[in-house]
Amino acid sequence: MSQGPSQDFAQLPEPPYYLVAFSSLRREGDDGYAAMAEAMARLAAEQPGYLGAESARGPDGFGISNSYWADEAALVAWKAVAQHLLAQRLGKERWYHHYALRVARVERAYSGPAGR
Amino acid sequence: MSQGPSQDFAQLPEPPYYLVAFSSLRREGDDGYAAMAEAMARLAAEQPGYLGAESARGPDGFGISNSYWADEAALVAWKAVAQHLLAQRLGKERWYHHYALRVARVERAYSGPAGR
Repeated sequence: MSQGPSQDFAQLPEPPYYLVAFSSLRREGDDGYAAMAEAMARLAAEQPGYLGAESARGPDGFGISNSYWADEAALVAWKAVAQHLLAQRLGKERWYHHYALRVARVERAYSGPAGR
Repeated sequence: MSQGPSQDFAQLPEPPYYLVAFSSLRREGDDGYAAMAEAMARLAAEQPGYLGAESARGPDGFGISNSYWADEAALVAWKAVAQHLLAQRLGKERWYHHYALRVARVERAYSGPAGR
C-alpha cells in the first residue's frame, strides 16, 4: 500500500538535529485517537523547527513515532502548544496503556540501499 | 496480543545513553527475513553495552526499530559483528526497499501514565 520511501521517510538535513522517540502501547478501541493523531501530525508540521516524522504501529498496538526537530528549543515549544497539551492529557487518560519518550541529539545519519 | 508494557518497552537506565533509530520499508515476501530478524535481536542482546530495543512495523511494511546502547563504542562494535554484517548485506540486497539510520545521544527520558 505504500507509495514509496518519500511517503514514509522523513527527508532530513545533515545532523546535528534533535529526535523525540515516542513509544506507546495503545488501548483497544479508537475513542477519538485517529482523528487526534492526524490533527497533531498536521499541527506538528506547522511548528518552527519541525523537520519531519516517521511512525509505525504493529497489530499488537505497540507503536513508535520518531519526530525530528532543528534544535531543543523547537521541541520544547511544541511540547507546550495548547492543542498538543490536550492531546497529551487524553493520551494519558484514554489512549495509552503505557508510553516512553526519549529526547536525543542526532549525531550521524545514513540511508540506503544506494540509489533507492 | 500484548502481554503488557514489559514485553514491548525497553527497560533503560537513566540517560545519557545512545539510540540507533532504524527506519525501514520492507519488500514483499519473507525471503528469510523473519528468522534473521529474530537471530539478530538475540545476538544484539548479547553484545556488551546493549541496553534494550523497541520495534514496530505496520501493515504497509514500514517499520521502526529503536535500539539503545550504553555508549558509542558499544554500537560501533555491534555494527562490525560478523553475523550482523551478513544481515546488513542481505538487508540491502533482499529485504528493504529503503532504510534510514540515525545515531543519537539520549539526553532525557520520560514515561507514563504514572503508575502503569
